[in-house]
Amino acid sequence: MGDYKKILLETHERIKPYVHRTPVMSSTAINNKVGAEIYFKCENFQKMGAFKMRGATNAILNLSKEDQQKGVVTHSSGNMAQAVSLGAKSLGIEAHIVMPSNAPQVKKDAVRGYGGRIQEVTPTIEARQAAADKIVLEKGSTFIHPSNNLDVILGQGTAAIELLEDHPDLNFICTPVGGGGLLAGSALAAFHFGNNCKTIGGEPMEADDAWRSLQSGKIEKNETANTVADGLRTHLGDINFLIIQRYVEEIIRVEENEIIAAMRLIWERMKIIIEPSCAVPLAAIIKDKEKFAGAQIGIILSGGNVDLSKLPF
Amino acid sequence: MGDYKKILLETHERIKPYVHRTPVMSSTAINNKVGAEIYFKCENFQKMGAFKMRGATNAILNLSKEDQQKGVVTHSSGNMAQAVSLGAKSLGIEAHIVMPSNAPQVKKDAVRGYGGRIQEVTPTIEARQAAADKIVLEKGSTFIHPSNNLDVILGQGTAAIELLEDHPDLNFICTPVGGGGLLAGSALAAFHFGNNCKTIGGEPMEADDAWRSLQSGKIEKNETANTVADGLRTHLGDINFLIIQRYVEEIIRVEENEIIAAMRLIWERMKIIIEPSCAVPLAAIIKDKEKFAGAQIGIILSGGNVDLSKLPF
Repeated sequence: MGDYKKILLETHERIKPYVHRTPVMSSTAINNKVGAEIYFKCENFQKMGAFKMRGATNAILNLSKEDQQKGVVTHSSGNMAQAVSLGAKSLGIEAHIVMPSNAPQVKKDAVRGYGGRIQEVTPTIEARQAAADKIVLEKGSTFIHPSNNLDVILGQGTAAIELLEDHPDLNFICTPVGGGGLLAGSALAAFHFGNNCKTIGGEPMEADDAWRSLQSGKIEKNETANTVADGLRTHLGDINFLIIQRYVEEIIRVEENEIIAAMRLIWERMKIIIEPSCAVPLAAIIKDKEKFAGAQIGIILSGGNVDLSKLPF
Repeated sequence: MGDYKKILLETHERIKPYVHRTPVMSSTAINNKVGAEIYFKCENFQKMGAFKMRGATNAILNLSKEDQQKGVVTHSSGNMAQAVSLGAKSLGIEAHIVMPSNAPQVKKDAVRGYGGRIQEVTPTIEARQAAADKIVLEKGSTFIHPSNNLDVILGQGTAAIELLEDHPDLNFICTPVGGGGLLAGSALAAFHFGNNCKTIGGEPMEADDAWRSLQSGKIEKNETANTVADGLRTHLGDINFLIIQRYVEEIIRVEENEIIAAMRLIWERMKIIIEPSCAVPLAAIIKDKEKFAGAQIGIILSGGNVDLSKLPF
């Protein structure tokens, strides 16, 4: 592998003008409950409300001017759709977003609000990929995968760089794992910028493909993904898997009730709005709290885009 | 009146060790919608989740050591119950909290969590006052009114002092008005520390006693108070009224749907949890936005204690 410390620093400099440096918060009540010092990196306050803004921006900035002119494409019904739309808009280029026809109206509105051009397709992975491929062929636009893309992974890693700048002696950084972009990027950053800082993934038991992949040594698939953590229903990508195998200490799986309880704890005690996916790392730390007793732990709160009409409590 | 600039500064110094200096946040999306620059002082991140911690702490600190030993009393089913409990606990003294028997269990639990001793009474103003008077007589404890108390008012004013330290050129400071402590304290602070900064109150149309009192020149009562802004169902106090008459520019009244829409806007765009009462100032600014076009406006977000099972959206 290349000099990833240097590449990560360059990535951070590249995207800085386009993203917020988000605050780090902590809660005495939560620290007392867990018996550790937890520092929450608030990517729910990031532009468009999630860390995905970092990776999307980096991927777009890394294209040649010529390629930028031909636009970018992604397929997503979630945060990456908004991130690519806003990232492209910031640079004055076109974003084509392939979305399943059954995506919530509020998500379609958000993408349009950020200037993304939506193409609706039947809600299957195959239809989404086919529609995206067609735009790539016809317009010459560049496809940006929501997580399994090295530029995206490096961009996501910049949140952990900032967290380690603020708190250099963290013993652990913990993130959720869905496609694996945030976990892989954070693990690279923790390895290169931490002071013996280990990276931990939190994953819903109901969509535990990353945990099973680490066990078997090959990429496993989820048969179903009935988790409240809607951002983590995706599958682990192969680039992410390589990085996670090498740099991640452990993945801890949590039950649905543990995710909801951790989400509620953050809402009630910290007065901030986080997505269910965001609560998975805290749920994991609470579940194994003996292991983390007295430690300094950084948690990346990945996003705050939640449908207020459909809360799990 | 005395030298309130000096008294406010002393108040601020006195309570500093016991309260958080809360952050100020802003939102491009909300600024664009309103056509003004709004700075939100996040007292929802204050200890126990509301600005009331400031006033309660100041009132307790201003007691003689001898009086402190005899404890303090308040009657409240809301934030003041928690503020007096936590403020007293910080100083190692007893807090007696008279609460209506129908107060939500979650609020009783919060008060007990902060060490307050609850006495439950039938839910009438008379029963509450009688129970508080009895504790004052029997134990020699000092009664601390939730809003109509000069020490409380001065303590509440310290949030506006900090906001003006961070943003000295605000044209307006806007707060909700219920009992009037926050509005009166903020108006004193804006007058003494602002650069020609005017103070505006926001009040629910459904509990508009302060607006009507300003019109008639005498204290008016609410017949009913059917507002979602549960923190503002109380009546304006006479000390507050004197200060508000002299120092407040205007009270703007808003409808229930305007309060809920402003609350949702803050939740969705800023990803922070605020009480319905908190949303009243933004609703007021949006309602009269022509008047505030281009202005720099400070809004005190008063608190974040909300029952997540009973949201208005």
